Amino acid sequence: MKKQMILSALDMSCVGFLAQGVWTHPADRSTELNTLDYWIEYARLLERGLFDMLFIADNIGVYDVYGGSAAASVKGGVQIPMNDPSVVIGAMAAATKHLGFGITGNLVYEPPYLFARRMSTLDHMTGGRIGWNIVTGILQSGARAMGRQALVPHDERYDIADEFMELMYKLWETSWEEGAVLVDREHGRYADPDKVHVIRHEGKYYRLEAVHPCIPSPQRTPFLLQAGSSGRGKEFAAANAECVFVNGVSKSVVAGNVADLRRRAAEVGRSPTDIKVLAGATIIVGRTEAEAREKLEEYRRYADPEAVLAHAAGGLGVDLSKYPLDEPIRYEENDANRTAMAMLTRNGEGGYTPRKIAEEMALSARNLLIVGSVEQVVDELADWMEKTGIAGFNVARLIMPDSLKDFIDLVIPALQECGLYKTEYREGTLRDKLTGNGPRLSAPHPAATIGR
Amino acid sequence: MKKQMILSALDMSCVGFLAQGVWTHPADRSTELNTLDYWIEYARLLERGLFDMLFIADNIGVYDVYGGSAAASVKGGVQIPMNDPSVVIGAMAAATKHLGFGITGNLVYEPPYLFARRMSTLDHMTGGRIGWNIVTGILQSGARAMGRQALVPHDERYDIADEFMELMYKLWETSWEEGAVLVDREHGRYADPDKVHVIRHEGKYYRLEAVHPCIPSPQRTPFLLQAGSSGRGKEFAAANAECVFVNGVSKSVVAGNVADLRRRAAEVGRSPTDIKVLAGATIIVGRTEAEAREKLEEYRRYADPEAVLAHAAGGLGVDLSKYPLDEPIRYEENDANRTAMAMLTRNGEGGYTPRKIAEEMALSARNLLIVGSVEQVVDELADWMEKTGIAGFNVARLIMPDSLKDFIDLVIPALQECGLYKTEYREGTLRDKLTGNGPRLSAPHPAATIGR
Repeated sequence: MKKQMILSALDMSCVGFLAQGVWTHPADRSTELNTLDYWIEYARLLERGLFDMLFIADNIGVYDVYGGSAAASVKGGVQIPMNDPSVVIGAMAAATKHLGFGITGNLVYEPPYLFARRMSTLDHMTGGRIGWNIVTGILQSGARAMGRQALVPHDERYDIADEFMELMYKLWETSWEEGAVLVDREHGRYADPDKVHVIRHEGKYYRLEAVHPCIPSPQRTPFLLQAGSSGRGKEFAAANAECVFVNGVSKSVVAGNVADLRRRAAEVGRSPTDIKVLAGATIIVGRTEAEAREKLEEYRRYADPEAVLAHAAGGLGVDLSKYPLDEPIRYEENDANRTAMAMLTRNGEGGYTPRKIAEEMALSARNLLIVGSVEQVVDELADWMEKTGIAGFNVARLIMPDSLKDFIDLVIPALQECGLYKTEYREGTLRDKLTGNGPRLSAPHPAATIGR
Repeated sequence: MKKQMILSALDMSCVGFLAQGVWTHPADRSTELNTLDYWIEYARLLERGLFDMLFIADNIGVYDVYGGSAAASVKGGVQIPMNDPSVVIGAMAAATKHLGFGITGNLVYEPPYLFARRMSTLDHMTGGRIGWNIVTGILQSGARAMGRQALVPHDERYDIADEFMELMYKLWETSWEEGAVLVDREHGRYADPDKVHVIRHEGKYYRLEAVHPCIPSPQRTPFLLQAGSSGRGKEFAAANAECVFVNGVSKSVVAGNVADLRRRAAEVGRSPTDIKVLAGATIIVGRTEAEAREKLEEYRRYADPEAVLAHAAGGLGVDLSKYPLDEPIRYEENDANRTAMAMLTRNGEGGYTPRKIAEEMALSARNLLIVGSVEQVVDELADWMEKTGIAGFNVARLIMPDSLKDFIDLVIPALQECGLYKTEYREGTLRDKLTGNGPRLSAPHPAATIGR
């Protein structure tokens, strides 16, 4: 039997996500993002396609590096507006039965006690379908929005992350023992106080003394997602993540990343296959290759080069408005841009000009872009699986919802036909579905042994 | 035409809310609070009864004063578990059209930028049906849960509140001007950068530099609810609140509170009737008085005296387990208990014993308890309206959902018959519905003029 792929849909609660300008296409509905109906239909569409998860990325702050202000981003709708990703989950969960939800939460900015409570409540209300995409922030504007002078230095953000995770595991996994909840009407005992513990934590970054305010949710700790690509980020992922999201357009680079993650996971005592790696992919499919190419050209006409550069500039921390369009950019390497820039240049020949960035990132940003007939897309996805060791894909939306509908109507049945995709959902929580390891984290994951 | 009352349902995302122990009644379903279905049915029930709002109170922390630990609260389910109140709103909004949602948010603990975003997203997704119940916290255990040594002193919490509100108003009301959002596909302009402003705030408690990440929601600033009963709390309410929730069992005391609030509102230039006051009420209705009294006695049999005292002790900051059941309690007055204790004692004759507290607070805590036939309940509600100047009631659940069903099936039609309650919803946002003043805050409310 062939290895079946995991499919997640990748999005943000915004208009211009990765394909800047494409919201101006007459068919695109992403400007309806402020309505519940938009999200409910979205969830139903994904469940019709047996998608495993909707992964909602997020950014705290605005892309304001290009031209020294947020003007280009505001004009082009470049990840602004950006709504709170957690608000729509309840409505989507009520409209579906199996679809998982990966929500982004920035641990540098979220108060631990309130964040742990929100995630537990979400996990309860979705019947264990919640994943947490753990991020530490990349935008200086986000730091200023949160009342800080600047981003915490990159590696220190992961020191904070380590402590935050320890705190989350204590709250989620140890505050309420198994069997603590009784709901014993006869004796008036809702829970057994002997099995409910005050968590006391005093660390370098956090202090807390509290009973976790929620009873254990189906997964206790939400399914843990992460996307760190730096060395320190991968070290963190190897220790904590159950699913890692990688960018990249080169199979050999992604294969290297997958191997590196597995090696690091093994080093900390986890099984190398405990971490499912998903590659970001933007997919344009047609009934024929020609039809797909036509769509590609059509979508490209709606791309907004200035908005693409505003997006790229924010990620890089380099004001791309300062460079002539056709001159290779030079920039001062720093913490905030090192990873992004390395990714951009190591996949090409270097010497990137603003024009080249605007062209290459137009529809898929730094994600893989696959364009072709159904057969070509299926072959390419299968080849990626085989050559890189990834477990599946995080499929970014393009024209919303038509490009996802195309994928679901054309590609999913073809993937099913050749045994590469499931034909029905498995029962159980998001963790059950994606790992087969049961509803909760188990050893050797550190959460399973913390504080015991 | 008679003045129609406002009706809000008062609850918390917990099992034991005000009537401790009553969850053990065979008909009570509050232990299902971890499911979406519970909340969706709840919302539908309230909308069937034309309720204006579901007001979800909240507490950060656990009641752990009684016996010096959370044991009695955990055992009795006394406001623990306590889920995040915002998570279920999306699902309830999708299942209803008019019902408003008052969500509690503690401004001392919420990061301003993220909180403003969450509330704007909620206001968008509900089509302008969001209210914010502004609280500053009353539990020492909450302060410790949030990494602090102790609660910020009472009056300083309101200094923090003043600054937090200023910051919220700036983000909600001024970051995006009217007309900033264009959604101009032809010219690729999602918004007009000249009409979108970076908010820069540097105050005593907060610093922030950010564009508000959401476009203006139907109400911009959510409908503002508050429940402060201290002098400083009322001063804050007079300046900011649109709807104030009061406790109390005496008409003359509540009438005095209403008059005081109106006087304070007038002092800061607001119209005295700009603030709608709701009185908390627990209502037991029967087809006859005898039937109501029977229900009262039945419910009382399920009350859990120790849980009632654990609840009262937390609110008072006094360990009631230390006092003999029949001796008047003596306690050291402090910031945290002054208001609560004053309310308890000024409504009675003083000299409260633990047993008396457990009896009087058994079903309604410090809320008004009305028990009677349909006619008696209607008369009593009308009398409260007439004698106190309140605008309506915040009806606390008792047996969930049966006591609300009783109220909706028996009392609402009788209220409608005598012109005391609407027979259909008004169109518009929560603010429109409850004030008739349009969807957004207008002068002389400070939010309408901030930063202009």
